[in-house]
Amino acid sequence: LFKRVIECVPNFSEGTNEQTVFAIRDAISSVEGVKFVDLLYEADYNRSVMTFIGPPAAVLEAVLAGAAMAIEKINMEKHKGQHPRIGAVDVVPFVPIQNVTMQDCIDLSIRFGEALAERHQVPIYFYEETAAYLHPDRPERRDIDYHRRNGEYEGLKREMANPDRKPDRGPQRVHPTAGATLTGARELMVGVNINLSTPDLRIAKQIAKRIRQKTGGLANVKAMGTKLEDRGITQIGISNVNFRKTPIYRQIELTRVEAWRYGVSIVGTEIIGVLPLDAILDSAEYYMQFENMDRNRILEMHYLE
Amino acid sequence: LFKRVIECVPNFSEGTNEQTVFAIRDAISSVEGVKFVDLLYEADYNRSVMTFIGPPAAVLEAVLAGAAMAIEKINMEKHKGQHPRIGAVDVVPFVPIQNVTMQDCIDLSIRFGEALAERHQVPIYFYEETAAYLHPDRPERRDIDYHRRNGEYEGLKREMANPDRKPDRGPQRVHPTAGATLTGARELMVGVNINLSTPDLRIAKQIAKRIRQKTGGLANVKAMGTKLEDRGITQIGISNVNFRKTPIYRQIELTRVEAWRYGVSIVGTEIIGVLPLDAILDSAEYYMQFENMDRNRILEMHYLE
Repeated sequence: LFKRVIECVPNFSEGTNEQTVFAIRDAISSVEGVKFVDLLYEADYNRSVMTFIGPPAAVLEAVLAGAAMAIEKINMEKHKGQHPRIGAVDVVPFVPIQNVTMQDCIDLSIRFGEALAERHQVPIYFYEETAAYLHPDRPERRDIDYHRRNGEYEGLKREMANPDRKPDRGPQRVHPTAGATLTGARELMVGVNINLSTPDLRIAKQIAKRIRQKTGGLANVKAMGTKLEDRGITQIGISNVNFRKTPIYRQIELTRVEAWRYGVSIVGTEIIGVLPLDAILDSAEYYMQFENMDRNRILEMHYLE
Repeated sequence: LFKRVIECVPNFSEGTNEQTVFAIRDAISSVEGVKFVDLLYEADYNRSVMTFIGPPAAVLEAVLAGAAMAIEKINMEKHKGQHPRIGAVDVVPFVPIQNVTMQDCIDLSIRFGEALAERHQVPIYFYEETAAYLHPDRPERRDIDYHRRNGEYEGLKREMANPDRKPDRGPQRVHPTAGATLTGARELMVGVNINLSTPDLRIAKQIAKRIRQKTGGLANVKAMGTKLEDRGITQIGISNVNFRKTPIYRQIELTRVEAWRYGVSIVGTEIIGVLPLDAILDSAEYYMQFENMDRNRILEMHYLE
C-alpha cells in the first residue's frame, strides 16, 4: 500500500530480443518499493513499454536501473522498427497518480535526466510538462513529435547542431550506441486499440484520420491505423490525454460511426497497459445508463482504501 | 483496511420517519470496526435497507445494536407499506465478501438469531443458505417468500400455529410490536432498477414478467414492475443472485428488447445499494468489447490492495 504514487512508463527500443526486454524489466522490478504493473513488447515496432508505480524515490532508482541495462544491451546503430525513436531509453514519462503534484513529477524527470546524462553521457531532451516549465517561451518543445522530426535517431546526429535542437542536459552529441533520451512529466494517458473487421489498411487510416484531434476528430485524442498481419485485420491505436473530458466510449462509438461508412464493424478492443478505474466507470455509466454511478457504489472501494 | 469482510444488509420496516431510520443507522455505524456503506429508505415501501461491512464479530455487534433500536422504535401494529414484511427487523442477510466462507456467514446468522431471540423475545426464521444447512429436507424454507406467505406480518399471528411455520429460534408467538425476523446467509445480490419511458404500469409488469426466471426470463433474476409517481414513469426492479453467470448487461439488453415490443425505451438505470467491481467490469467488457480486460488492467488494483 503506497501513500504517494507516481506512474512511470519508460519506452525502450527493443521489442525483438526477449532476453534484453526481460533483463530491463528485472532491473526495474528488483528495486524495493516499486510495483511492476505491465510489460508490452512488439516485434514490428521493435519496442517495449513498461509500466510500474511507486513512491518518487523508488521510481527514480528503478527507472535508472532499467535505463542502465538498456544502454548496456541496446545498440541503436543496429535498431530497426516501425515506431519513431531517438534512443535506447527512448521516452521516460512520469505521471502523478496519488498524493503527488505535477510539479513533483517535473522535478523527478529533471533529476532523472541529469542522473542519466551524468552516469551514461546520454543527451537529454525534456518534453510535455517539464518542457513547458523550463521553456515557457518554446511551446513546440512540449510535443514529443517535435523531438523526433527530421529523421529521428538517424537524423538527430545532424540535427543536434541546430541551436533549436540543443539538448537540455548532457553532452551535445548523440551517444554512439544509446542515442538520446526524452523525459518529462505528463498527465495520465489512456490507450485503447480498436480492432476493425477489415484487412484494408487504407480504410483503417481513413477512420483514424477522422478520429484524431489534428484532422477534425475528437479533442485530446491521437489515432493511427495499423495492420495486424496475424489476424488479417486492421486496428486503430488511440491514445487519450484527458479521459475525463473525452471518455473511452466516445472514441469507440465515433469509430463505429466512421467505420459504418465502409461497412466495417468493431470486432474487439484492447486496453494498452493499464488505465484508471474512473476511465472504465465513466464509460460503464454511459453504456449502462446509470443515473447514480459513483465510486461509493462499488463495494471494494469501502475496504480497499 | 479489513482482512475478513462480511456484508450485512438488514431491512427494517421503517421508511417514513427519518428520525427512526437515522437512529437505527447511527446505532449500526457507531460500532467500532464496521463501515457503513449505504442507506436507502422509501416512503411507498415504508422500508429502509442498510448496507455495512466489517469483520464477523463487529458486524454481529453492529446489527444487534441496529436491531435493538428498530425494536424499540417500530410498532408493526401501525405499519403500512407496499413491500411484504413480517417484522420490524424484517430480514437480515449475511454475505461472504473476503476471506470468509459461506459457512462462517451461516454460523453468524445463527448466532445473530439466537441473540435477538434471547434479548428481545422475537421469533426467528432462517432462510437461504442457513435454512438449507439446518433443514436439508425442507428446501422451501430457503425461499424468503415462503416465510411471507398467507398474510405476511398480519397473517403470521395465525400461521405460526401451523407446525410447518414454527420459528427456528425464540418464542412460538409473534412479538406484539416487532413481529418476527428472517435471517440467513446468502450469496451477494446485485440490484439494478431499469427506468422505462412509459407511465403505464401494465407495460412495466409485462416486461418484468418476461425478464424474471420464474416466468421464462433470465436465470438467477427476480424482477417486478413499479410506478415512479414523481417522475411519471415506471421501473423494473431487478435483483440478481449470480451476477457472474447472468451479468447486468444481459438484464439491461433483454429489458430493451422486451420494451421495444411496446415502443418503450430505457431512460436510465440505478444501482441499488452497492455492487462488486466485477459486476461493472463484466458488463464494461461486453459493451466496450474488451479482448483483454482483467482487474490487473486497472491501475488502482496495483496500489489499493
